[in-house]
Amino acid sequence: MNDLFLDRLIDLALEEDLGAAGDITSVALVPADQLGKAELWAKEEMVLSGLEAFAHVFARVDPRVKCELEASDGDRTGPMQGIAQLEGPLRALLAAERTALNILQRTCGIATAAAKAAEAVKGSKLKVIDTRKTAPGMRSLVKRAVRDGGLQNHRFGLFDGVLIKDNHIAAVGGSITDAVRAAKANAPRLVKIEIEITKLEQLEEAITEGADVVLLDNFDDARIAEAVKQANGRVELEISGKVTLERLPILAKLGAAYVSMGAVTHSARAMDLSLEVQTIRPRR
Amino acid sequence: MNDLFLDRLIDLALEEDLGAAGDITSVALVPADQLGKAELWAKEEMVLSGLEAFAHVFARVDPRVKCELEASDGDRTGPMQGIAQLEGPLRALLAAERTALNILQRTCGIATAAAKAAEAVKGSKLKVIDTRKTAPGMRSLVKRAVRDGGLQNHRFGLFDGVLIKDNHIAAVGGSITDAVRAAKANAPRLVKIEIEITKLEQLEEAITEGADVVLLDNFDDARIAEAVKQANGRVELEISGKVTLERLPILAKLGAAYVSMGAVTHSARAMDLSLEVQTIRPRR
Amino acid sequence: MNDLFLDRLIDLALEEDLGAAGDITSVALVPADQLGKAELWAKEEMVLSGLEAFAHVFARVDPRVKCELEASDGDRTGPMQGIAQLEGPLRALLAAERTALNILQRTCGIATAAAKAAEAVKGSKLKVIDTRKTAPGMRSLVKRAVRDGGLQNHRFGLFDGVLIKDNHIAAVGGSITDAVRAAKANAPRLVKIEIEITKLEQLEEAITEGADVVLLDNFDDARIAEAVKQANGRVELEISGKVTLERLPILAKLGAAYVSMGAVTHSARAMDLSLEVQTIRPRR
Amino acid sequence: MNDLFLDRLIDLALEEDLGAAGDITSVALVPADQLGKAELWAKEEMVLSGLEAFAHVFARVDPRVKCELEASDGDRTGPMQGIAQLEGPLRALLAAERTALNILQRTCGIATAAAKAAEAVKGSKLKVIDTRKTAPGMRSLVKRAVRDGGLQNHRFGLFDGVLIKDNHIAAVGGSITDAVRAAKANAPRLVKIEIEITKLEQLEEAITEGADVVLLDNFDDARIAEAVKQANGRVELEISGKVTLERLPILAKLGAAYVSMGAVTHSARAMDLSLEVQTIRPRR
Amino acid sequence: MNDLFLDRLIDLALEEDLGAAGDITSVALVPADQLGKAELWAKEEMVLSGLEAFAHVFARVDPRVKCELEASDGDRTGPMQGIAQLEGPLRALLAAERTALNILQRTCGIATAAAKAAEAVKGSKLKVIDTRKTAPGMRSLVKRAVRDGGLQNHRFGLFDGVLIKDNHIAAVGGSITDAVRAAKANAPRLVKIEIEITKLEQLEEAITEGADVVLLDNFDDARIAEAVKQANGRVELEISGKVTLERLPILAKLGAAYVSMGAVTHSARAMDLSLEVQTIRPRR
Amino acid sequence: MNDLFLDRLIDLALEEDLGAAGDITSVALVPADQLGKAELWAKEEMVLSGLEAFAHVFARVDPRVKCELEASDGDRTGPMQGIAQLEGPLRALLAAERTALNILQRTCGIATAAAKAAEAVKGSKLKVIDTRKTAPGMRSLVKRAVRDGGLQNHRFGLFDGVLIKDNHIAAVGGSITDAVRAAKANAPRLVKIEIEITKLEQLEEAITEGADVVLLDNFDDARIAEAVKQANGRVELEISGKVTLERLPILAKLGAAYVSMGAVTHSARAMDLSLEVQTIRPRR
Repeated sequence: MNDLFLDRLIDLALEEDLGAAGDITSVALVPADQLGKAELWAKEEMVLSGLEAFAHVFARVDPRVKCELEASDGDRTGPMQGIAQLEGPLRALLAAERTALNILQRTCGIATAAAKAAEAVKGSKLKVIDTRKTAPGMRSLVKRAVRDGGLQNHRFGLFDGVLIKDNHIAAVGGSITDAVRAAKANAPRLVKIEIEITKLEQLEEAITEGADVVLLDNFDDARIAEAVKQANGRVELEISGKVTLERLPILAKLGAAYVSMGAVTHSARAMDLSLEVQTIRPRR
Repeated sequence: MNDLFLDRLIDLALEEDLGAAGDITSVALVPADQLGKAELWAKEEMVLSGLEAFAHVFARVDPRVKCELEASDGDRTGPMQGIAQLEGPLRALLAAERTALNILQRTCGIATAAAKAAEAVKGSKLKVIDTRKTAPGMRSLVKRAVRDGGLQNHRFGLFDGVLIKDNHIAAVGGSITDAVRAAKANAPRLVKIEIEITKLEQLEEAITEGADVVLLDNFDDARIAEAVKQANGRVELEISGKVTLERLPILAKLGAAYVSMGAVTHSARAMDLSLEVQTIRPRR
Repeated sequence: MNDLFLDRLIDLALEEDLGAAGDITSVALVPADQLGKAELWAKEEMVLSGLEAFAHVFARVDPRVKCELEASDGDRTGPMQGIAQLEGPLRALLAAERTALNILQRTCGIATAAAKAAEAVKGSKLKVIDTRKTAPGMRSLVKRAVRDGGLQNHRFGLFDGVLIKDNHIAAVGGSITDAVRAAKANAPRLVKIEIEITKLEQLEEAITEGADVVLLDNFDDARIAEAVKQANGRVELEISGKVTLERLPILAKLGAAYVSMGAVTHSARAMDLSLEVQTIRPRR
Repeated sequence: MNDLFLDRLIDLALEEDLGAAGDITSVALVPADQLGKAELWAKEEMVLSGLEAFAHVFARVDPRVKCELEASDGDRTGPMQGIAQLEGPLRALLAAERTALNILQRTCGIATAAAKAAEAVKGSKLKVIDTRKTAPGMRSLVKRAVRDGGLQNHRFGLFDGVLIKDNHIAAVGGSITDAVRAAKANAPRLVKIEIEITKLEQLEEAITEGADVVLLDNFDDARIAEAVKQANGRVELEISGKVTLERLPILAKLGAAYVSMGAVTHSARAMDLSLEVQTIRPRR
Repeated sequence: MNDLFLDRLIDLALEEDLGAAGDITSVALVPADQLGKAELWAKEEMVLSGLEAFAHVFARVDPRVKCELEASDGDRTGPMQGIAQLEGPLRALLAAERTALNILQRTCGIATAAAKAAEAVKGSKLKVIDTRKTAPGMRSLVKRAVRDGGLQNHRFGLFDGVLIKDNHIAAVGGSITDAVRAAKANAPRLVKIEIEITKLEQLEEAITEGADVVLLDNFDDARIAEAVKQANGRVELEISGKVTLERLPILAKLGAAYVSMGAVTHSARAMDLSLEVQTIRPRR
Repeated sequence: MNDLFLDRLIDLALEEDLGAAGDITSVALVPADQLGKAELWAKEEMVLSGLEAFAHVFARVDPRVKCELEASDGDRTGPMQGIAQLEGPLRALLAAERTALNILQRTCGIATAAAKAAEAVKGSKLKVIDTRKTAPGMRSLVKRAVRDGGLQNHRFGLFDGVLIKDNHIAAVGGSITDAVRAAKANAPRLVKIEIEITKLEQLEEAITEGADVVLLDNFDDARIAEAVKQANGRVELEISGKVTLERLPILAKLGAAYVSMGAVTHSARAMDLSLEVQTIRPRR
């Protein structure tokens, strides 16, 4: 299925890398009809994500490149494991290689980081969710990688959920009640209302007005526990702010439903993947 | 000066975050004519980069947003230092905030990582350079961030330098001599020829044919030292493969001119920056 | 044959409906490899138009969707008649459904409204033509629907015919003679000159200067008849303004060659069409 | 605030009307430096919507065109009421006129139709909501027009709410329970789950599984009343199918919370608006 | 007034010349805040055309560049005559220079070639017109240049005139009568019908069926004269095929109304224009 | 292999020629399912270039058009030689014909002009190179045509080579030494440094600082010879300014390595190519 937004990102990435001048090394050295094949390798342990986008980059450069996947998004691979086989015009393989890997090493990095976070809260009821802190143009790839790593997604964008922050509350005059009521009156029909609070005292008002979720902004552990106790199941609670992998097991014991974690998407390390390209002797 | 490629990335990032539906929270809660102001803060020590792109995101959302920069790309900021003041329609400030920060936290992260690498080789003749391992669509932002951090850029793309790898050599029949000659005959007029070698024995042939730079692919320290000795200043040498911040000081002593380092651009941690947005009471 | 303008409209329509986030219901509930089939039904009597665009929406979402048309543009269908069979990935069928129907229900509505207008003047020499009052981006689809309904098109755009209105006459100083002469001197080689008049007295001057068509703007029936008599076949006359389906038979008797009618394209009711989608059990 | 999707629609509409050849009548008759002014008139009673888009079309054709609005979206205007004053290069006014009106006559038509539906249920608790049956590319304009007319919006697109239809239920094996559970497990964090039922017997299961809204597809009045009774406030109910303006007062008495109505957006009549353009004598 | 097609061409031209990497010479040598000025010179005698597009290239690169024109399209300039003064950021002047000149030297070349053709038939009734043999993407610039040189335009594109060639006649079965009738029945309302004939015997049939123009394809002078005599003013005649500047005065005596000439647009020599750029010392 | 920049140019060219209205002659006269075939002829002697782009235009209009090339880029063809056979829907052949030829007649013209220049210096060591004086949007096509004609390319754009002109020298304060040093310090890693000098006295300084190439701007023959003598092989010299085909043999004797020649790309005459289109009788 086509993803028109992803197509635009891939085109942009190819155009910045190739320019109108193209891959001058290949043009100088590789005959236009030279065929090649390539194997994609995971060079360390990782959770895979973004394989279709990887394949799509090659198809965009030249539809004659065939890519056969030997693993799937969400799979955990050992080091030095083959993931995909490609075959097609050698110039196309070389022209697409870096752009395709630049995507894949990031999506696999995010899926792998997500899997670590999922592992850290395993067995508890706490669910780790992502944020909108994604590289520009990569939102759908990143959201998918987070799911491939075993976490759930928070809002995709500004359009699929109401999240009332302090600025919004200030804009309606400072009252949580007014803010939630305005949201309920004006928001689209099928989105939930989440409201960020910075003080424990604001919780009751948010619950009373029927917010669907309350975000505890930068609460310490004690205050989180207190909020959970006070909410007593009447509203979903989300922990946010300074969340690290190390802190997750502690947070998991506090009883909140969700914790959002920016680092999974904004600072995941790129995975080590490589493409071994080989020349195929032309038949003639 | 307009950057048409950057414009496309910003549009894509805004469209994926806003969709056609827009920021439903602000539409529900913030009057269309409500003004706001905002201050950009660096919340940890970092080297700045990407400030113009940051400002441009807001201008693209609404040209009425004014952004005054209080620091410049390349500046090193202490923690909790103000970087920019913005003022304009509150809805626009909120709609652009995340997209602008998603860019800036990455460019500053890369500049900061680059500065650390520059520091690691300070005083030596070794120059650390970047690679093409950049997030899709962010090439020019990333290349600039690398320079803001004090490093030099390698090739920008596939078009501004010939880099002959093993595949290219294989495609011309396996001979380094043939490869360099073909490159010299066919490459554009003002680009240099770099060739990757995997064995020390290939060095002499590359030098003889007049390659401008020789890339030592995954050479250990002893072989690098041997290559430097053998080249004896007749060609520039570039070290590549498994380069870490820790290994840089060691490499700095081996006598090669350049070392390329992917981690600076593919795995730099995002910097902690925040935008404090405030409502301005409308005059009426 | 590709229609690059239509491609842009379809992309825009898909992007506004899917965003970068996609069809979250299908992603949550339908396996990626689930196949489906669908039948397109006309649920009331109508004249068909836009079937290729309808099929194209599905192909754009996923080229694997196959669409077999069982009727053609211009066909009149009874109620509850099957029009097309589709088969392909279920997610693609569901993602494209609404966008495809949003186009088709409008083009069929316009073709059906056009057919009614054609019927109203049947047997007379009066030809009903359309206007440029079309939904933004749908010009070529709408112009085609008008023809499929049995009417002729007026100008397609501002580029394929000169139509001199009062503003243009004022801009050259108020003289019909000067206006027609300027048009003849400056207009492209193969377009005709039409001029709008608001008073009967202007007719003779327009004819004398060799206008190809004279548009009678908001003339009542008596004045139209008088104009026809005065023109006496020396120029084509077009009736325009407040034209309803009911008034057409009356206008048909007045002797003018053309009547343009905006309602056919700006206010046609959407036709009732539905797509019955079914799950196909995967073979495994 | 810029709307990048709307910009694309306006560009497409202008390009289809002007082509690369432009407005040949104005080029032939109107000097390039000729100024003009124009007044926008509502020629019948209507509710306004889309005025910013209207103004934006002129600004896109020539930024020197100034447009002063004398009324606001959501205003009800009497017949022959002035709405906006424009001034700028005459060629630009004439080139943009039709495209701007083609948008405005539709958005005002939809706002006016929406206002009639709102009137029909006034005093009751029933809320009329729209559908996704909008002209391609006009989604955000149409959704806004619906609100300007006094109704609420249903989902904006496929991304801001889960709506489970029979196909989705079939795809998970036929069980409502399974469908709602899968949706809850996989859907984004802040969207609600709506499920369509075709038989009264399915209601209890949907409620038990915690669906947020249940859509009663093509239920007659008696069955709607029965469903309301059975739900007894445990879930929101939405009426859908064959909803006409005439039927609304009857539906308003049945106790359901929402009724969705496609005709407001797919078949609203275009409003009668006209732009009176005048030549301004150049100063020299 | 904006020209959306021209904008796309300028963007494409700038992107191919600058890539995402930009003007590396200026970035290396010119401070970002360095101002400059430039003067545009005609270095040979020519007719000017395309000055607005020239200025627009600079504005697109940086809106701060101001361009004051000292001459107008259509003006004939002597050698070494100043045409425009520019001032703005030096980097922008240098980045836009080549792209702007690449357009202007072609449009001026075409206007100058057109002026020579106009001169060659001066005093006769023969009008020289252009063809669609224009550089890709430059159609509107070229058509305008032809007019600036004093000639008239033929069709702009495939959409503003019917031109029936032998293929079309073959497609309707070989009959000129059938071809003209089909065109009259199906073509848009305000375009004329031109038909190409290859034999003198076809002329009468074309006239009888009411073709507006007859194109004499590759007729020699004698046959042209015979056709003029036979047509006797009943139809406009266009001469086409192997038309050179030298042949024009001969053709001018044969009595045909029009002659179309491809060389004016497809092979005009580029004019010699240069931009003298100077550094302005920054005030500080 | 796809060329995304070329795709944009072809789309732009097709959209300007077809508009949204399309080829009204074919729509009026040619049935939608009518097939046709076509043969491409070279009507004069020429060197071929751009054949893939030619074929691509047809494929873009309708992927069902098949194009079989009977010659290759770089081939020299005699007059009246067949070059390609096409077959497909007749409407598509006719719609694409002019746009495809508009490209091909220019690329072949440039290749042929390049071949003449190559011929003029044959046997000497002087290499003729091109400039950036190319039609907007056609850079890659033109650069390729130059190579197909037997010449080498200068810089492709502003990004793949440093070329220091007088403005740049002025911007760094007037010193050639400072200019070359700044370039070496700041330019990307694999590009060479070329510097333009206007006086013989500047040569030594440029050589001393290690410029890779020195461009002799508008030097007469005597001064060129003197520069060659003075450089004595220490730097490559490029001749530039007022270079004609006639002057090439003289320049070839002066000993410089390169001469750049704008006329090859900015003023090459279009080649005479024609497409003979024929109707194929539909099988039914």
